[in-house]
Amino acid sequence: MSKTSPRVYVDTVLSLDATINLDGSQAHYLRDVMRLREGDAVRLFNGRDGEWQTRISATTRRAVDLEPVERTRPQTPEPGPRLIFAPVKKTGTSLIVEKATELGAARLSPMFTTYTDKSRLKIERLQSIAVEAAEQCGRLTIPTIDDPCSLTDLLAGLQAETMTAPSSAGPIFLADETGAGAPALDAMQGITETSQTAPAFVIGPQGGFSKSELAAFRQLSNVVAVDLGPRILRAETAAVSVLTCWQASRGDWRELNP
Amino acid sequence: MSKTSPRVYVDTVLSLDATINLDGSQAHYLRDVMRLREGDAVRLFNGRDGEWQTRISATTRRAVDLEPVERTRPQTPEPGPRLIFAPVKKTGTSLIVEKATELGAARLSPMFTTYTDKSRLKIERLQSIAVEAAEQCGRLTIPTIDDPCSLTDLLAGLQAETMTAPSSAGPIFLADETGAGAPALDAMQGITETSQTAPAFVIGPQGGFSKSELAAFRQLSNVVAVDLGPRILRAETAAVSVLTCWQASRGDWRELNP
Repeated sequence: MSKTSPRVYVDTVLSLDATINLDGSQAHYLRDVMRLREGDAVRLFNGRDGEWQTRISATTRRAVDLEPVERTRPQTPEPGPRLIFAPVKKTGTSLIVEKATELGAARLSPMFTTYTDKSRLKIERLQSIAVEAAEQCGRLTIPTIDDPCSLTDLLAGLQAETMTAPSSAGPIFLADETGAGAPALDAMQGITETSQTAPAFVIGPQGGFSKSELAAFRQLSNVVAVDLGPRILRAETAAVSVLTCWQASRGDWRELNP
Repeated sequence: MSKTSPRVYVDTVLSLDATINLDGSQAHYLRDVMRLREGDAVRLFNGRDGEWQTRISATTRRAVDLEPVERTRPQTPEPGPRLIFAPVKKTGTSLIVEKATELGAARLSPMFTTYTDKSRLKIERLQSIAVEAAEQCGRLTIPTIDDPCSLTDLLAGLQAETMTAPSSAGPIFLADETGAGAPALDAMQGITETSQTAPAFVIGPQGGFSKSELAAFRQLSNVVAVDLGPRILRAETAAVSVLTCWQASRGDWRELNP
């Protein structure tokens, strides 16, 4: 039952003595889409208190009340990688956010480069995509989505991190379309685990990085250029591929059957 | 110039003395979308004769004529894996076809399982998605898309292949959501290369395989159940992930820098 009951993210405290009151789109989803009624089970998580099985205690025209029954999963750290990406047209950016959430990214950083599509980025929309993906894939946390910044500001931030704590700065894997990178999996498997910091992955815009942008990345001491094979991947495919390579070789895909 | 010129798939012979006449949507694309004129460069491929640089020799209201200039890439074998998948709702199936093409799959086999969405599958639409993805990613071939078949027929076909030529049957990696599979990358890296046959990957429907379906797959001697980490991946994400794991660890992502 608890396996197949709907899973919903809330931002209120979850504990045995808390009644959770959902309204708006969440109440609509449980009552009108899933057609749940009093006594039905719903799983809740808030990114802090683990996952809870709850039961619907009341439904009204505008709200659904839930009573926690028991905590079914404790909150555990989810130290996923950071994905730095250039927004892409049409559904590409939504796909990147959805898939990166499924693949366990902890932080998503949109950046504007020379060849990036400059249409306005709706961060709130991306946040709701991340919430929905987290609900669906079983995560206990929602990835942080940074406000978009220019490549210049991004590089300054990365450089500052490296300068202030060179030993704790994690590797930055740069998807390099020029053919100069090492095969992605070899590069990731070859990294010595010296830092506690999760790695970052950088995916360029559909038009590629400019030469000076690539050169600026390469000046960072912890950047590793990686190659993603002989075909030209779309940005969202490249994002899924680098995160898969990491999770499969060094990340949490290996922790299940230790 | 030839790097950034549009790349178009045709199904006519490509040779120095052939004039290629495009009409319909391809002529519209070159003339009205890309705004190309007489003398402009276009790259053509047909899955047999390599890639050719051509120049537009004439445009009319209904057609575009192209004269081959030189062959820029010879036809080389592209022996990619086979992806067996259950169609998914909305844009999921289109994404699977597009991404599998980018990741080098040679054959795509849609199958209907107990929990598969049964909406009509438009194979022609999927074929045009595969063509577009092949044009964009630089492949020299278009993947074959099989007519959809039932899981029963699919299993009978796989079994027949294994029975008639057990030594040449490639591995079949089954994405197993029950947690019983080996970590995907370990399983792929652990396969001994005894057969010349490319591997197959099986991705179940959004609702998962039924127990008896999983059991039927496991009866095939060359099936390897693989695990794709602690989160529940959507079908299209799982498809990208298994193909990435293969290409990165055993496939053509490693052949560039031998």
